[in-house]
Amino acid sequence: MAFGSGAPSEEYKLVVLVRTDLDMGKGKIAAQVGHASVECALRAEKKDKRAFDIWMNGGQKKVVLKVANKDEMVRYMSEAKSRGLYACMITDAGRTEVEPGTNTCVGIGPAPGSEIDRVTGGLKMLRSRSACRCGCRRHTRARPHPRGSAGARLSAGPWT
Amino acid sequence: MAFGSGAPSEEYKLVVLVRTDLDMGKGKIAAQVGHASVECALRAEKKDKRAFDIWMNGGQKKVVLKVANKDEMVRYMSEAKSRGLYACMITDAGRTEVEPGTNTCVGIGPAPGSEIDRVTGGLKMLRSRSACRCGCRRHTRARPHPRGSAGARLSAGPWT
Repeated sequence: MAFGSGAPSEEYKLVVLVRTDLDMGKGKIAAQVGHASVECALRAEKKDKRAFDIWMNGGQKKVVLKVANKDEMVRYMSEAKSRGLYACMITDAGRTEVEPGTNTCVGIGPAPGSEIDRVTGGLKMLRSRSACRCGCRRHTRARPHPRGSAGARLSAGPWT
Repeated sequence: MAFGSGAPSEEYKLVVLVRTDLDMGKGKIAAQVGHASVECALRAEKKDKRAFDIWMNGGQKKVVLKVANKDEMVRYMSEAKSRGLYACMITDAGRTEVEPGTNTCVGIGPAPGSEIDRVTGGLKMLRSRSACRCGCRRHTRARPHPRGSAGARLSAGPWT
């Protein structure tokens, strides 16, 4: 479906909602997000070439958000579909960390950011809790906190 | 490129090598693996339809492996290419956790598992270190250890 309401200059994105209750490892989550990304991209290439091209040429923005459980995930998927957005749910074969047939994540888009935000704007990004202890969630060992060591307790500053 | 040496019944897979030295969060890693997966899938669809079809119909297997740093990642990418496998390196825009232009991961395939294993067979899977404390790396809160609580120290058994 083409989104005529999205201005040509608006950033398009693809979001993936990941269940946190399954306690999947980093690699498992990444593979599930890979499944959803490929599914959404291939579908857009065939059915919504305009959105596909804008998204691809704009850097293929992908955002990974977290949902508490399957019920919440399904609610967001239904809401996305009711607004005309493409959404697909990924079912894992269950060879490793989860039981066969487990619904692990939902991909939505690619579509104009504003269209997607109307559905998922309230969800938080999936991040590693160990990334930074200052609270700003932007710093890592590769990009350390400008005020001092990552291990120090720092008040939230302008980086928050 | 078509891989004539791969028997039709052989499982095809796509592997993504992720740098662990960047200390990316779970969501960031997942998005990078999403980039690599889409890049590899779209390229295969256009240039190696046989591999694409076998991989898609076989469940789109994706495996996420870890490499220590960029040098190691580039070595594996070069080795893959020298063996005729498709490989692509993902460069992040650097809006969040890493610096702009950082090479975050490499996608290889989809191709017959045996072809890929000749290159990446020695690499370990990317997993969450907090998944299970028994050492078997297979259990989570959603799929608990059959011997007892996840927090207990358990000897490695037949589940290893």
